[in-house]
Amino acid sequence: MQKFVLSGGLGLLGQRILQHIVSSGHGCVRVMIVDTAPLQAAKSGGPPTAAPGITGDPAVGNGAKCEVLGSSTARGAAAPIADDSSTGAVSVVRGDLSSSDVAAAIKSFAVGDDGGGDHAETTSSSTLSVFHLASVMSGQGEEDFGEALRVNIDGTRSLLDTCRQIGGRPRFVFASSIAAFGGGEQVTDETKLLPQSTYGMTKACAELLVNDCTRKGFVDGRIARLPTVVVRPGPPNPAATGCFSSVPKAVLHGQHFISPVSPDLRHACVGLCSAVDGLIRLHDASEADFGPRDRAITLPAVSLSLRDLEESAARLARELGRPPGTVSYEPDSAVEAVVKAMPSAVKASNRTANLGLLESAGAHEIVEDYVKGERLR
Amino acid sequence: MQKFVLSGGLGLLGQRILQHIVSSGHGCVRVMIVDTAPLQAAKSGGPPTAAPGITGDPAVGNGAKCEVLGSSTARGAAAPIADDSSTGAVSVVRGDLSSSDVAAAIKSFAVGDDGGGDHAETTSSSTLSVFHLASVMSGQGEEDFGEALRVNIDGTRSLLDTCRQIGGRPRFVFASSIAAFGGGEQVTDETKLLPQSTYGMTKACAELLVNDCTRKGFVDGRIARLPTVVVRPGPPNPAATGCFSSVPKAVLHGQHFISPVSPDLRHACVGLCSAVDGLIRLHDASEADFGPRDRAITLPAVSLSLRDLEESAARLARELGRPPGTVSYEPDSAVEAVVKAMPSAVKASNRTANLGLLESAGAHEIVEDYVKGERLR
Repeated sequence: MQKFVLSGGLGLLGQRILQHIVSSGHGCVRVMIVDTAPLQAAKSGGPPTAAPGITGDPAVGNGAKCEVLGSSTARGAAAPIADDSSTGAVSVVRGDLSSSDVAAAIKSFAVGDDGGGDHAETTSSSTLSVFHLASVMSGQGEEDFGEALRVNIDGTRSLLDTCRQIGGRPRFVFASSIAAFGGGEQVTDETKLLPQSTYGMTKACAELLVNDCTRKGFVDGRIARLPTVVVRPGPPNPAATGCFSSVPKAVLHGQHFISPVSPDLRHACVGLCSAVDGLIRLHDASEADFGPRDRAITLPAVSLSLRDLEESAARLARELGRPPGTVSYEPDSAVEAVVKAMPSAVKASNRTANLGLLESAGAHEIVEDYVKGERLR
Repeated sequence: MQKFVLSGGLGLLGQRILQHIVSSGHGCVRVMIVDTAPLQAAKSGGPPTAAPGITGDPAVGNGAKCEVLGSSTARGAAAPIADDSSTGAVSVVRGDLSSSDVAAAIKSFAVGDDGGGDHAETTSSSTLSVFHLASVMSGQGEEDFGEALRVNIDGTRSLLDTCRQIGGRPRFVFASSIAAFGGGEQVTDETKLLPQSTYGMTKACAELLVNDCTRKGFVDGRIARLPTVVVRPGPPNPAATGCFSSVPKAVLHGQHFISPVSPDLRHACVGLCSAVDGLIRLHDASEADFGPRDRAITLPAVSLSLRDLEESAARLARELGRPPGTVSYEPDSAVEAVVKAMPSAVKASNRTANLGLLESAGAHEIVEDYVKGERLR
């Protein structure tokens, strides 16, 4: 029985990964989601549709069935992720990774009886995978130094320590960020990490922790350094790079958006589908493809400006017979500083190909993916 | 009034820096030493000779006078550091950097009345400098993962947070290590940090924290990435690289030493005097010489093997008319792995010259310094 823990699993990437796990697991998976957000908050738009047994309480039992968890794209109507209980069991634990209650819940989940019976026992044949996605984002991190360290560093440490206590060297996929680089025209996996934002600094520290815990045999770490993910559906998240989603969304939805970032600033982005695909490929990959010293891989990026995204969105809006929205640019130096503290482009390494990571889609395809996901066409 | 906080100040580097501060401060300095070691432990060899007011208790008052703190070279007889109370006031706080008592003591020291009176007041004219030297070393770090994180990461965070609360952007000199690099034939300040030991990982994280706290204006950080310091007087410390001091000491003192590291493994070392000089130069330097993005500077190193040190020590022993001791080499793979996880050589950057950092002495001069310090000649 394969078991998955998804920290920050109610977020955009978490819900996409959950969809993948449940749909490809043929009923032979158990998933525990750990998130501080209440279940409702994950589904901005539609009403909460939590199934029986899915609550916001800490330490929900492992056997809770999930018929409907909510929309993965926050598009206003909850879509079923797994409407047949035979496809798997998903439980949600609401709480902080640093709390002992959450650590105990994860341990109980990991060593618990696969059959969902009352008598929890260690099942040596089950394997555990962790997708560690929970994070304070770049904008919030710059404003709240202490919270960024608490969530991004201490939370990672706690989760790694829980894995170490569980034993068996769980597969540990960590969502890092290109903010760890700290800017630059074009970066590679060999570029020295010199983060120029608190968010990036915490991601760089967490990478070092995951690498060392891998070396020590506590986990089998795989670190995906994510470019800015676009187009994010739903309301903006607290990232300084949120405008790279807000601009195309405003244009497609016929709204007006005031961008705090200049139209021509190039930035390393990745399409949402490519990002999810990359995380899953890193999870599935062979250890040998990472090499012995460094588990961090920068996902392939496409270098985009807001103008690129605005133009692609306007073209698609016209094709759809929708009046395009408008964007005005009123650069905010603080926000731009955070964006500039991330690289504008990424050069793929040899490992990128070895790991089967696909090039990210371009601006048009990225916006088209959003159009399809939102059923605008 | 210049004030100094020395974390780990009872260690070898701390006592040398204290000597420098007290001797060059012309009585116009206050020093607070924070260390977990009892005062006696710092003076392996001679009897404890703490002056009145110098105790191992936490939160010793600021005004405590220090006539005799102890030998800085642990050579068996306590040597006076400052035997005239007019040369300055030194207090010792025994405790952990993460404890709230120690943080409160540092804050009280920093904002206290310079005159040593009863009525503590913020003195805006005083400036605060911190030398952050406290650390779990490489060997211990590899054995005790949790303690390495607690002392090296959490301790650094606490001290940085205390500085932030004090305000005024204290000068913050942090003793990092070339273990942060994780090996390599020859490294430069542009080399990506890929630590291959827990000790190195914690130092890399602490560097990132100091850099970010500098960027945010909490401190004025200066990071000295130290090669292995040789020859350390006194008993070996819990570093895997301790044999680089033990070999020449055994030869000079006519003893036999079994080295866990092969005689020909090259390793980046720095003489003790050069290391202390480097830390002080980084403290005294202008901010402009560091550049805007990275406060970490690798101190100039000399690439040495144990054979080099053994031969230099044997030559000096014969000159002194002492029968040289002997060394047998019985490599221990675990110890060698930690040594190999540090670079064998360092290439100086342009900043090294700008900051006035001197090339380290070579093997003969390094051993000669020890001979002089120990008064063997």
